[in-house]
Amino acid sequence: MRNNRLQQQIEFIIEIDKLKQVYRQSILMDGTRRENDAEHSWHLALMSILLEEYSQEKIDLLRVVKMVLIHDLVEIDAGDTYCYEGTPYKEKLEREKKAADRLFSILPPDQMEELQALWEEFEKRATPEARFAAALDRLQPLLHNYKTKGESWKKHGVTSDKVIERNKSIIEASKTLWDYAETIIKDSIKKGYLPA
Amino acid sequence: MRNNRLQQQIEFIIEIDKLKQVYRQSILMDGTRRENDAEHSWHLALMSILLEEYSQEKIDLLRVVKMVLIHDLVEIDAGDTYCYEGTPYKEKLEREKKAADRLFSILPPDQMEELQALWEEFEKRATPEARFAAALDRLQPLLHNYKTKGESWKKHGVTSDKVIERNKSIIEASKTLWDYAETIIKDSIKKGYLPA
Repeated sequence: MRNNRLQQQIEFIIEIDKLKQVYRQSILMDGTRRENDAEHSWHLALMSILLEEYSQEKIDLLRVVKMVLIHDLVEIDAGDTYCYEGTPYKEKLEREKKAADRLFSILPPDQMEELQALWEEFEKRATPEARFAAALDRLQPLLHNYKTKGESWKKHGVTSDKVIERNKSIIEASKTLWDYAETIIKDSIKKGYLPA
Repeated sequence: MRNNRLQQQIEFIIEIDKLKQVYRQSILMDGTRRENDAEHSWHLALMSILLEEYSQEKIDLLRVVKMVLIHDLVEIDAGDTYCYEGTPYKEKLEREKKAADRLFSILPPDQMEELQALWEEFEKRATPEARFAAALDRLQPLLHNYKTKGESWKKHGVTSDKVIERNKSIIEASKTLWDYAETIIKDSIKKGYLPA
């Protein structure tokens, strides 16, 4: 093909199809099966658009959307690490960095740099956009657990203190969304979805 | 809940989880199962970001991304209509309009109006953004068919003239992407994925 740049972009687009086969611990809200990373990323992108107004800091919405669309691509190689699991942080980070290097280098250099930088920004929660994206990445699985009566919490023996510990960083991006998350957590305890 | 606006937004976010269960005729590139609309929409959103430069007309990327993220939501009620099927256009349109009315009205009025307008713009290919989004919505299933050796084409007895007829509108948004699509179609005929 003459257009080598387009060829690289298409190759990346084909490669990332694999994200549709990386399954998470979250259960779909109808309870039928586990959610995959592509579906999760789509959901977060729409949540960014709909909930933008609750960010405490001014954010560039397009950057947030880009971030959530790509934030889990590294799991194509590194796999999904369950957030309440005890995998050493350093080990996970190394696996994911290697994955990012391989995946993003399929792209033309300018796009490789842009996506790599966005992914690192997200991982470090270094900016208002990254903090908002990370907050939604907490809130969405919470909604899934709530709607499935705590199915994945129960399966993994997760208790409310761990859920609060994991999700309280939402407040860094949005007090309103954290208030909402707290309401859900309290109601989940009350309804027996989550052991107190 | 005190915040009624947030409650409406969350209700919509929960409702659209159903898109993850609307299956298309496209087969995942690894050949294992059909793709669903949420995965497809995620893929299109990333394609918009990566292929923006090939739009012949100046486009607002965020509007394109919003459009592709929501373009299939109506299929939650209306179901997926296979593009090479003979369903009367008017019938499909009526079903989808009804679905749009129900779904978007879950949102607060300003967001309902924005999403409804974006969906109609996409359907009518009324703007550069809509034409580019529609072009990607053609190109992506083409890639899936190509990578799965024409699996869904063969299943439905689709011939190359129909594929060209269906996809040639890509040229309205991008000559480069249409040239690429043509290369794929020709190679698919040559390799026996698609009857000439």
